[in-house]
Amino acid sequence: MSTISLCEPKYLELKNRLTQIQDLEVAACVLNWDQTTYMPTGGTYARGRQIATLKEFAHEKFTDPSIGELLEDLRPYEKSLPYDSTEASLIRVTRRDYERAIRIPSEFMAKFSQHQAVSYETWVKAKSLKDFSLVQPYLEKTLELSRELASFFPYKHIADPLIDFVDEGMTVSILRPLFNELRQKLLPIVEAITSAPPIEDSCLYQHYPKEQQLKFGHTVIERIGFDFQRGRQDETPHPFTSSFSIGDVRITTRVYEDNFTEALFSTIHEVGHALYEQGISLELEGTPLAEGSSSGIHESQSRLWENIVGRSRGFWECFYPQLQGIFLQQLSPVSVSEFYRAINKVANSPIRTDADEVTYNLHVMIRFDLELAMLEGKLAVQDLPEAWNERYKTDLGLVPANDSEGVMQDVHWYGDMVGGMFQGYTLGNLIAAQIYEAAVKFDPEVTFSIERGNFTLLHKWLKHNIYQHGRKYTANELINRVTGKPLSIDPFMRYIQDKYSNIYHLKLPIVA
Amino acid sequence: MSTISLCEPKYLELKNRLTQIQDLEVAACVLNWDQTTYMPTGGTYARGRQIATLKEFAHEKFTDPSIGELLEDLRPYEKSLPYDSTEASLIRVTRRDYERAIRIPSEFMAKFSQHQAVSYETWVKAKSLKDFSLVQPYLEKTLELSRELASFFPYKHIADPLIDFVDEGMTVSILRPLFNELRQKLLPIVEAITSAPPIEDSCLYQHYPKEQQLKFGHTVIERIGFDFQRGRQDETPHPFTSSFSIGDVRITTRVYEDNFTEALFSTIHEVGHALYEQGISLELEGTPLAEGSSSGIHESQSRLWENIVGRSRGFWECFYPQLQGIFLQQLSPVSVSEFYRAINKVANSPIRTDADEVTYNLHVMIRFDLELAMLEGKLAVQDLPEAWNERYKTDLGLVPANDSEGVMQDVHWYGDMVGGMFQGYTLGNLIAAQIYEAAVKFDPEVTFSIERGNFTLLHKWLKHNIYQHGRKYTANELINRVTGKPLSIDPFMRYIQDKYSNIYHLKLPIVA
Repeated sequence: MSTISLCEPKYLELKNRLTQIQDLEVAACVLNWDQTTYMPTGGTYARGRQIATLKEFAHEKFTDPSIGELLEDLRPYEKSLPYDSTEASLIRVTRRDYERAIRIPSEFMAKFSQHQAVSYETWVKAKSLKDFSLVQPYLEKTLELSRELASFFPYKHIADPLIDFVDEGMTVSILRPLFNELRQKLLPIVEAITSAPPIEDSCLYQHYPKEQQLKFGHTVIERIGFDFQRGRQDETPHPFTSSFSIGDVRITTRVYEDNFTEALFSTIHEVGHALYEQGISLELEGTPLAEGSSSGIHESQSRLWENIVGRSRGFWECFYPQLQGIFLQQLSPVSVSEFYRAINKVANSPIRTDADEVTYNLHVMIRFDLELAMLEGKLAVQDLPEAWNERYKTDLGLVPANDSEGVMQDVHWYGDMVGGMFQGYTLGNLIAAQIYEAAVKFDPEVTFSIERGNFTLLHKWLKHNIYQHGRKYTANELINRVTGKPLSIDPFMRYIQDKYSNIYHLKLPIVA
Repeated sequence: MSTISLCEPKYLELKNRLTQIQDLEVAACVLNWDQTTYMPTGGTYARGRQIATLKEFAHEKFTDPSIGELLEDLRPYEKSLPYDSTEASLIRVTRRDYERAIRIPSEFMAKFSQHQAVSYETWVKAKSLKDFSLVQPYLEKTLELSRELASFFPYKHIADPLIDFVDEGMTVSILRPLFNELRQKLLPIVEAITSAPPIEDSCLYQHYPKEQQLKFGHTVIERIGFDFQRGRQDETPHPFTSSFSIGDVRITTRVYEDNFTEALFSTIHEVGHALYEQGISLELEGTPLAEGSSSGIHESQSRLWENIVGRSRGFWECFYPQLQGIFLQQLSPVSVSEFYRAINKVANSPIRTDADEVTYNLHVMIRFDLELAMLEGKLAVQDLPEAWNERYKTDLGLVPANDSEGVMQDVHWYGDMVGGMFQGYTLGNLIAAQIYEAAVKFDPEVTFSIERGNFTLLHKWLKHNIYQHGRKYTANELINRVTGKPLSIDPFMRYIQDKYSNIYHLKLPIVA
């Protein structure tokens, strides 16, 4: 007992130091947010350096050996506490982060960051020129550095450490069979749907003035539960969510005036991320626990709100009259059923971010498999475009018009690394379906209340079961706690089959 | 020679470390800018902590003994270079900053900052309740801490170190006689003007819609030379300028729809500060030299553009037709002469920030004298409101209606400290006149070109003589270099007498 009470001042010391480190990281996020929203172009050069300095100091402070000593000294205190107490969780999660961070040499991080910056710039140019060969040598270097990064860790599969950075506990041996099964079940469904008469969705591609789109979006997300006292929305070319504290969570959006769906659904997507961040328990404020559990869990919340809620029939029973009132000219001839079918149209297309929720995972899994092949040394970077196009032909029945709409479409490999970049998207879709199923099982009223424009029931359930915990639990722990089962593709397949059998008037293949 | 070349890598090391320290300080500024412009209220608590952390780390990094060692090692290198070379200046200025910083114990800084935050909040409340007694104990503590701060330094007058923080080289023994002379010369002028028939200025207080005010202001400041590629303008309750790099200098403004002068002149004022920051040589980017020379020099640039240029007859010969075009209803019956007289109306008033340029320095000198009296122990905080009101009666012929419009009107003593807070404002006015006189002497075309809406000549001259140098020279060095004379009140008195003799059709007292 005396050992434990001696430890408490050390716990406070650890917590205070972690908060200061987080303050540096948050400052880097604010500078990044500012750069993409309001910064004049003249600030670009200095801003890159300023963000790098903040990250460097945060890393330096976090990897200081005294943090390791505090964590060591706190072992008895941690063991004396319940596993999911805030104190034990903070020590446990910090130890994982610390042990990961100290394995990576600072000079390597600096070298990799510099390379990423140059590679990103080259990608922007190569993409606009539709010329993969320009960025190929940079991607080769990125692959080499990604392999080196993985090599600092013990692993079964070389991609495992990279996946573990963002989806802790997930490995290639878990994901590969899961994704293969998913692909095998999705391909015949896509085949069946795309053989059916296509849905008419031209109503979505009329002129929708920006101001009215933003106003409608604002109404929707406020109703869903986004708290504008503790957040804001701005415009950027590439939407994202950032959290500067639990009381300051910001989303960004972009509007296309000739496409109604882009702004609204990407806004609801970001709000899904933001509700998670706004819903974290205030007790965790300023600590490393005040974040989402994993890439997959975070994405599950954005996809749950964007697709399972935002593209549901009930959602539009509630909002469509209002939408029709705003866009009278565009939508008065369109019934709610026609609108609902239009926003859920399934079609093979070359671009991941434009994909419907049925084909979306096929796009993701192509990337996941190609990442693994590159890391395993089975696929050379110079052969990547061909491999990409072949797989698109096989899975989606099309070949991209050029590499900019093909292998260069996503920034991830060019601005970040090869490995761990994509599994989170499909995990998000799977987890979203599994969690939503659990919510409805807990209270079937969840679905009906959406129809009445009441999102409180679902929001509160998610907050109670997921949001408040921040990073206390890993993804697998959380899925088991919330749904009573390990991760599975079944809820997602059930969701897809129920929804799209109805929309396409088809009897889709049933999960065994 | 070998010693010197050995030093150069140390110079680069010093410079890199100073840049990283500046990155932390800039990050704190960005967080502050964000807080006053776009941050949702929910972010308040965490933001205060985040800014404090950044400042603490910057201070910790800067006061590290290894910085002192580098500065020591670089003495021979510094001596081998011309005084005003960038390298020698960086070492010299950094040494002054360093020697100042290490005298102040970190715990004292933390204690003072915490007190300032609580005192500020109490002031906000006390001001709204018009109750000085609420904030009195906090101001007493602030006075005590200000004295303690001064005591870390050698001094002749206890206010000297506090003045030296922002107006290096200025002391009570320089300022007190200068200000006393200024006051003695201003009082009869104010007396003469306020005995003359008052100017009719009701045209300024009609309804001026916000959007049009902002649009006109934008046109004006772009023409003056504010570079929107390297800066931006936003709205805040209390206008300020912040520089995040030479390529990213931001101003803020506030608009009152029932008062035309407020937004425009405060915008030009901030642009004066901003032109200075935008005009610093790129060679100094990221170093402690990339700032203004002193509080007084900085203020001289804002006041030069706001008053000497912005309230000049020539300026309005150029802009008035355009202004009349925008506010046709409000201004068509008002001639340019009437408008020019209206914006230069002199009147005794209780509020410093609303004061015209003739009475403004009287407000400032009241504060300067009271600060000194408090620091000297000759004036107790509890007697401050009475002393304030007495002096307002003597100098401005009025007694404030209450302490909110009196002794509590300015934030400085309540959010910062007692000492060094106000002399910069009057120094700014004096220096502005002295510098502008030198510019016109150098090329009389400076004045005439303004009439034609051409500000390039003046802007270039200021950039060449002042802006580009950043902090290379102290205020006194700069004034001597630019005007060939030490600081004097004469140019300001000549400016005031010429301008207001004309406006008020009076023969004002002549400077001996």
